[in-house]
Amino acid sequence: MLGAGAGAVGVAAIAGAGGFAAGRESAPKLDLKSFAFRGQHQSGIVTAQQDRLHFAAFDLTTTSRDAVIALLRAWTEAAERLMAGAELGDGAVGGSYVAPPDDTGEAMGLPASGLTITFGFGPGLFSKVEGLASKRPEQLIDLPHFGGDILDPTFVGGDLCVQACADDPQVAVHAIRNLSRLAFGTAAIRWAQLGFGRTSSTTTAQTTPRNLMGFKDGTRNLRAEQTADIERFVWADAADGQAWMAAGSYLVARRIRIRAEVWDRTSLKGQEDSIGRTKGSGAPLSGGSEFTEPDFDLKGSAGTPLIPVDSHVALAHPDANDGQRMLRRGYNFTDGADSLGRLDAGLFFLAYVRDPRTQFVPVQNQLSKSDALTLEYLQTTGSALFAVPGGIGQGEYVGQALFG
Amino acid sequence: MLGAGAGAVGVAAIAGAGGFAAGRESAPKLDLKSFAFRGQHQSGIVTAQQDRLHFAAFDLTTTSRDAVIALLRAWTEAAERLMAGAELGDGAVGGSYVAPPDDTGEAMGLPASGLTITFGFGPGLFSKVEGLASKRPEQLIDLPHFGGDILDPTFVGGDLCVQACADDPQVAVHAIRNLSRLAFGTAAIRWAQLGFGRTSSTTTAQTTPRNLMGFKDGTRNLRAEQTADIERFVWADAADGQAWMAAGSYLVARRIRIRAEVWDRTSLKGQEDSIGRTKGSGAPLSGGSEFTEPDFDLKGSAGTPLIPVDSHVALAHPDANDGQRMLRRGYNFTDGADSLGRLDAGLFFLAYVRDPRTQFVPVQNQLSKSDALTLEYLQTTGSALFAVPGGIGQGEYVGQALFG
Repeated sequence: MLGAGAGAVGVAAIAGAGGFAAGRESAPKLDLKSFAFRGQHQSGIVTAQQDRLHFAAFDLTTTSRDAVIALLRAWTEAAERLMAGAELGDGAVGGSYVAPPDDTGEAMGLPASGLTITFGFGPGLFSKVEGLASKRPEQLIDLPHFGGDILDPTFVGGDLCVQACADDPQVAVHAIRNLSRLAFGTAAIRWAQLGFGRTSSTTTAQTTPRNLMGFKDGTRNLRAEQTADIERFVWADAADGQAWMAAGSYLVARRIRIRAEVWDRTSLKGQEDSIGRTKGSGAPLSGGSEFTEPDFDLKGSAGTPLIPVDSHVALAHPDANDGQRMLRRGYNFTDGADSLGRLDAGLFFLAYVRDPRTQFVPVQNQLSKSDALTLEYLQTTGSALFAVPGGIGQGEYVGQALFG
Repeated sequence: MLGAGAGAVGVAAIAGAGGFAAGRESAPKLDLKSFAFRGQHQSGIVTAQQDRLHFAAFDLTTTSRDAVIALLRAWTEAAERLMAGAELGDGAVGGSYVAPPDDTGEAMGLPASGLTITFGFGPGLFSKVEGLASKRPEQLIDLPHFGGDILDPTFVGGDLCVQACADDPQVAVHAIRNLSRLAFGTAAIRWAQLGFGRTSSTTTAQTTPRNLMGFKDGTRNLRAEQTADIERFVWADAADGQAWMAAGSYLVARRIRIRAEVWDRTSLKGQEDSIGRTKGSGAPLSGGSEFTEPDFDLKGSAGTPLIPVDSHVALAHPDANDGQRMLRRGYNFTDGADSLGRLDAGLFFLAYVRDPRTQFVPVQNQLSKSDALTLEYLQTTGSALFAVPGGIGQGEYVGQALFG
């Protein structure tokens, strides 16, 4: 029951169009792939994960219900245009000569590049805006403190969020910038994060990418094709509590910095024991190849499990978590260097779940307490949770069911 | 007389290899393009500009000449391997199981992606390292303060720099990270900058990209094919003062933030008058198309020049600057949002010149004093200058002529 919003509308790739003729060092790489904004679910969740991300969390600067509705209407119209590769309004040059252009213009000439735009609502929306308090889903908790969290307030929370994914970073940046412009007077960016490389695959056709620890990441991720599991673990149902969240999901965002200098001085054995997989192929340490099921009981000559009990694979595996799973959609990031010359780099963890209380919090608690990887090499600097409403039909605006 | 270091060794692009068959939403985009590290000039200067950048400035943590030479030897070997798409040393999994891997591994499986690595020396190298004071080129000045500079010490200076350009950001990030690892004990990253979209073209075959003001940028940039101008404006000569800088160049790095919120509220006319070109095609306001020469004398019905005298094009044009030109190689950047919710975004200006004293300083002084664009919409937050030595032959290490 995958929604139309997740399906490709105009999937096409003209790569190397015009040929790679002599004297042409730079082949044009047109990415004409585009997705529909409207559908049963929002796009950008089970959509085949794009290469690049620009994510923004917003603070409301109003308590007016009408102002928020007006913003969501404007965002809906804009997102539909942007995802089709069109400019906003009259475009960057098509409007009045003596007025500011409707579109900032840096994506002029660039194709849609598989852009998806996904909107979410943070807890603050429900406490700040008149009449919404009773509509807050019980799943939209205030995330607890986890061991290993050393949060930078710069990267925490938000009343609204926008996730823009595309194969061209300039297209994703253009989207966030222009949506931010439309929010002027109603909401302002609280924090934002760029991601340059995906760290999971959301369809079976995608190969598994590597994170900045050098390991394949997302081998066991849920995939769009696993429709029964997607229904069970990703999409909210009207019966879950708040009818307006039907066909929606909950987005956990965590900015996880890697202690790269420490990790890089760890032996290959130490790294593989922390992960529970080989660094090369990504096979579990119990043997086989990348997609072989881990055997947590198989013991080595020392009499201990080949996959250490405190490894990330052992502790994050559904078998150790009541069968719970998440749809991950994270990205590698690096934001330059910190004041000590260390790379400020890591994983911007994004995961879509039906209920964070059962699918994320217990898993993260377990990792924070026992996981060798989390304890020694990771430091979470940002954290937020958003309710991502379902998709919309013609004439509707995103989140309309909440205000209806 | 373009050096071999600028030529493509294995230019090849397999785009959409395997076809874009049904059920395969994500076409592999292998970029097998690779360049040679050795040659008359360093690569990454006149090389066709790649899409993505990771730039790092380093502080020396030693005064030892031998330690610096050892680092440059290690960087040379590493850069040659990285540019060939190879891993460092024994790789990420090929070494001892009980030792840290030689390579961090996040580029495993990724092709060379047109990676170039370019090394430069800042003023501090000459003052800190024993025996180098007399070798500092007179061209390697301490950059003066310019109007519009509101420098963040976080982004100023550096004793060494490494510019990594590639078509895949993960490849560029991997390069900087692993070179930084090799520097441990000798140098540490002082600041770093990611760029996500090029803002100029360095060959005639490349189309002109757009900056975050939405305008085409780099229309009049020097191109690799203009060999006489490249000789005149880019490559240092032994007769310029320091023989060791022969075939080298000087790299000006400026982190220029755009006051996007102000710019975005400026009328199309105001924007075009500031630039001196149309936003759509990039044609000069005196008419024609993108590559038409601007006519600064042509007046409109109001009796004033169609290209305003305080426009960027008028003031940055060689005609207004004693015919001086630069080879630009900049990138768009956005580093999230600042504490006021404004996008921290702009242009990371990189330019290679033969003599910054005549080619950069006077131009920037003029822009800082009179340029409508610079005065109203730009704020320079970072600034640095580096001497980029010439290329090397077999058996040599980068910068060897300085220490020989």
